Amino acid sequence: MTTPTPESIRSGDARAIARAATLIENRDPAGEALLRALFPFTGRALVAGLTGPPGAGKSTLVSALAAEFRLRGLRVAILAVDPSSPFSGGAILGDRVRMMAHHGDSGVFIRSMATRGRLGGLAPATGDLSLLCDAAGFDVVLIETVGVGQDEIDIARLAGVNAVVLVPGMGDGIQALKAGILETASLFAINKSDRPGARELAAELHAEAPEIPVFHTVATEPPASPGAGIRELAAAILNARPTAARRTLLWRWRLREMLLERLASRIDDARLAAAAGQVASGARDPYGIVEEWTAG
Amino acid sequence: MTTPTPESIRSGDARAIARAATLIENRDPAGEALLRALFPFTGRALVAGLTGPPGAGKSTLVSALAAEFRLRGLRVAILAVDPSSPFSGGAILGDRVRMMAHHGDSGVFIRSMATRGRLGGLAPATGDLSLLCDAAGFDVVLIETVGVGQDEIDIARLAGVNAVVLVPGMGDGIQALKAGILETASLFAINKSDRPGARELAAELHAEAPEIPVFHTVATEPPASPGAGIRELAAAILNARPTAARRTLLWRWRLREMLLERLASRIDDARLAAAAGQVASGARDPYGIVEEWTAG
Repeated sequence: MTTPTPESIRSGDARAIARAATLIENRDPAGEALLRALFPFTGRALVAGLTGPPGAGKSTLVSALAAEFRLRGLRVAILAVDPSSPFSGGAILGDRVRMMAHHGDSGVFIRSMATRGRLGGLAPATGDLSLLCDAAGFDVVLIETVGVGQDEIDIARLAGVNAVVLVPGMGDGIQALKAGILETASLFAINKSDRPGARELAAELHAEAPEIPVFHTVATEPPASPGAGIRELAAAILNARPTAARRTLLWRWRLREMLLERLASRIDDARLAAAAGQVASGARDPYGIVEEWTAG
Repeated sequence: MTTPTPESIRSGDARAIARAATLIENRDPAGEALLRALFPFTGRALVAGLTGPPGAGKSTLVSALAAEFRLRGLRVAILAVDPSSPFSGGAILGDRVRMMAHHGDSGVFIRSMATRGRLGGLAPATGDLSLLCDAAGFDVVLIETVGVGQDEIDIARLAGVNAVVLVPGMGDGIQALKAGILETASLFAINKSDRPGARELAAELHAEAPEIPVFHTVATEPPASPGAGIRELAAAILNARPTAARRTLLWRWRLREMLLERLASRIDDARLAAAAGQVASGARDPYGIVEEWTAG
């Protein structure tokens, strides 16, 4: 596989973008070199996160939003980060929904990533893919995640604007969200809001966070016939461009993740295994090892 | 607050243990010094994890198991790690259940920790508390977590034996678990197994992971009247003492977490904020900053 050139990415070449995305996901040094060359051409895209519990209809909502952005002539990249269990067919189903809705439209780029349980690895890769799509000229980058883990908070912190998606009638809908996800919210979307309990959920959200606007949506398939509230939500996302202070805060989080990923990649696995054997047998204490290895 | 002595911890002094736990949770250097002094007296306790989705009845099951271990004359420490949303009353409710069941029993130590969204911080603190309880002479350390995030996988990796707790009839019971949690499972407990669907869930689990034993439990309040299957589950946990190879693997994960926590604590926040401002304004690229800061 030849490494794509910065020029091929900037021209929007779909195959080059897909190849670059693979290099980036694999943490190939060629991917980082490409991103360094592309960085001066980033900063134009609006990066929006959509986070919520399983079953909130995020994939369908993202698809409907993408269709609405396309109607406005905007190019859209969708990054779907799925931490679901290997038992679940959710990831594959979500992919199918997205693929069918936007098949053959070169103005939509779709990439799904499964979490791999690697500490610190997922958010940096997602952030790098977001920069790639930005440099490739996509106007909007939609990052879809399930809001139940620390990974997802880290990913939500990549986005200039964050929609937290909930549905009425899921008893533990709000409770199932990881503490911290709500702090990342720029706006709430109550999806499937034609179901009973939508008004009560809106009131509950308003009581908890009165400053965050609440939108009611009914994302339907096919997204070509826009569901209720999609246009309003799309407009709100477009209007929520982050301030310079917000962008600095996002980079602060992101730089920290990038530093930790780099430091983690330098830990020598063989040396670690040997030290672990010594600790397990009681020959050495782990605190002394950490002190020794991080001294100087 | 005076720092507890290693001797006071080893004698099982409940107040000293609680004070030491606070130092450890706050990542106070005095807590680490104490742990270094105590490390030679650890390695005796059985550390068991109980992980599962919200609503699986983990707190009640942990309480029932603790009562069963007490009947066998074993001292039990319970570490409950709760990543629930600030909207949720689950943590407080779980605490009450545990507290009422074991009130006044000096053979039971209970500590609840809320996640704080700090990268890498929670698993090391939980591991340190587990060592503290080990040194304090508790025979069994039960670590209870909600199995929905990366934090919880890291915590599950602290335990020599891991029970993944599920309930019948939660449509997305298995699906709600984070990928990776199932890989940590030593055994499955189908709690509330008097509900319809228990047999189907057992069959599903057996099909996915035929080598992992499945237990059926009905944890009831008060735990003084042991629920169905609790005795069998307790016996299986006690019989599942990890091998030397498994303990080495656990320490390998744990040392890695400890190293990353130490490295993360050294990142200079003011310098990070200044660099973030430069990246947000486009003056510098983030990859160059990471390379510069981690060079040498």
